Amino acid sequence: MADEVVVFRVWDSPFSYRVELALALKGVNFRRAEEDLKNKSSELLLYNPVHKKIPVLLHAGKPIAESLVILEYIDETWKQNPILPVDPYERANARFWATYVDDKCLEILWRACWTRGEEQQKCISEAGERLRTLETALEGKKFFGGDTIGFVDIVVSFLTPWMEVLQEMARIRLLEEENYPRLCRWVRDFSSCDVVKETRPPREKLVAFFATLKPPN
Amino acid sequence: MADEVVVFRVWDSPFSYRVELALALKGVNFRRAEEDLKNKSSELLLYNPVHKKIPVLLHAGKPIAESLVILEYIDETWKQNPILPVDPYERANARFWATYVDDKCLEILWRACWTRGEEQQKCISEAGERLRTLETALEGKKFFGGDTIGFVDIVVSFLTPWMEVLQEMARIRLLEEENYPRLCRWVRDFSSCDVVKETRPPREKLVAFFATLKPPN
Repeated sequence: MADEVVVFRVWDSPFSYRVELALALKGVNFRRAEEDLKNKSSELLLYNPVHKKIPVLLHAGKPIAESLVILEYIDETWKQNPILPVDPYERANARFWATYVDDKCLEILWRACWTRGEEQQKCISEAGERLRTLETALEGKKFFGGDTIGFVDIVVSFLTPWMEVLQEMARIRLLEEENYPRLCRWVRDFSSCDVVKETRPPREKLVAFFATLKPPN
Repeated sequence: MADEVVVFRVWDSPFSYRVELALALKGVNFRRAEEDLKNKSSELLLYNPVHKKIPVLLHAGKPIAESLVILEYIDETWKQNPILPVDPYERANARFWATYVDDKCLEILWRACWTRGEEQQKCISEAGERLRTLETALEGKKFFGGDTIGFVDIVVSFLTPWMEVLQEMARIRLLEEENYPRLCRWVRDFSSCDVVKETRPPREKLVAFFATLKPPN
């Protein structure tokens, strides 16, 4: 098993999912090592001593941490079905939007769902602005990657079903068709891809899981 | 000037400097477009509408923002003197540490110099831990990139002279030889490279500039 590929993951993590979707797009077989974040395995602590976080990709005994770093590694290691474009300028654009999502969207979207009252209203408004900016990256394109799923699509994959479930539980609606026609279409197109349907966690399981974290309003 | 290379920058910015050092390492000629951050140019706002920040690299009329994204673009566009390694695993390691520096070191080091009292003590202690982690990345190596300056060295370049000047003004000493022998050696080795000496802002000019922001203790 010298070339074994293992993903240290948690089934409900959108960051783990990025790695698993990229491997699935490449047709790379891998083993899932499920972690208990309240009792992390000695392997996880050994393989990611700096952040002690999932996901970690272990390939031929070598560990790689941080989901964006792992995605680049996957694309450079298994060349089939590239997830980044070939052209340096287009690659820069993909990296720009991936960083934008991680730095500017993730936390505020999460907080828009998990806060209440005045703070929630502020977060909803700020999240809306960020989504409006993200919407511009889809101009004239089916996926962020063009005609097929690419780097940014993988990074944005938390919009479905994670964000859908969270919005339902918080009884808010961030992604209205009227205001975000491209992102709403993207959610539909992305969700209907076979590779996505086959790999992502079941919506009902996520609903049940999030309900244990905090009761809905 | 179809292929003109322009860096929208501020002379005192360590983020602008990353881009300029990478271009210098590649031997790429470029024009500096100095920005006034209190009165940003219409070009900067046009080229980086999302963040409205420097640095922006303009190459053949196409703008790229975000310093790490720009560094990858430079390395992919001008192949001479590579700043990232060839091996995918080593590339992943370089990207991991670059992200670590940006996400975990920059702000806390800055705050360790600009806060006071109890908050400062907390920041100094936390900054120390981050630097200890960063120190491990230099094990057995002259530069983060190995024998020559690479991606991570460019990203860490704010340690000198920026951090040196800030520490002097704050009358604190974060990087003690005793505790961080590798990082201290790195500062000396990096500072003595010709390309670094030729490109970075003069220390005295930085001292004078930071003094206008806030008086020393």
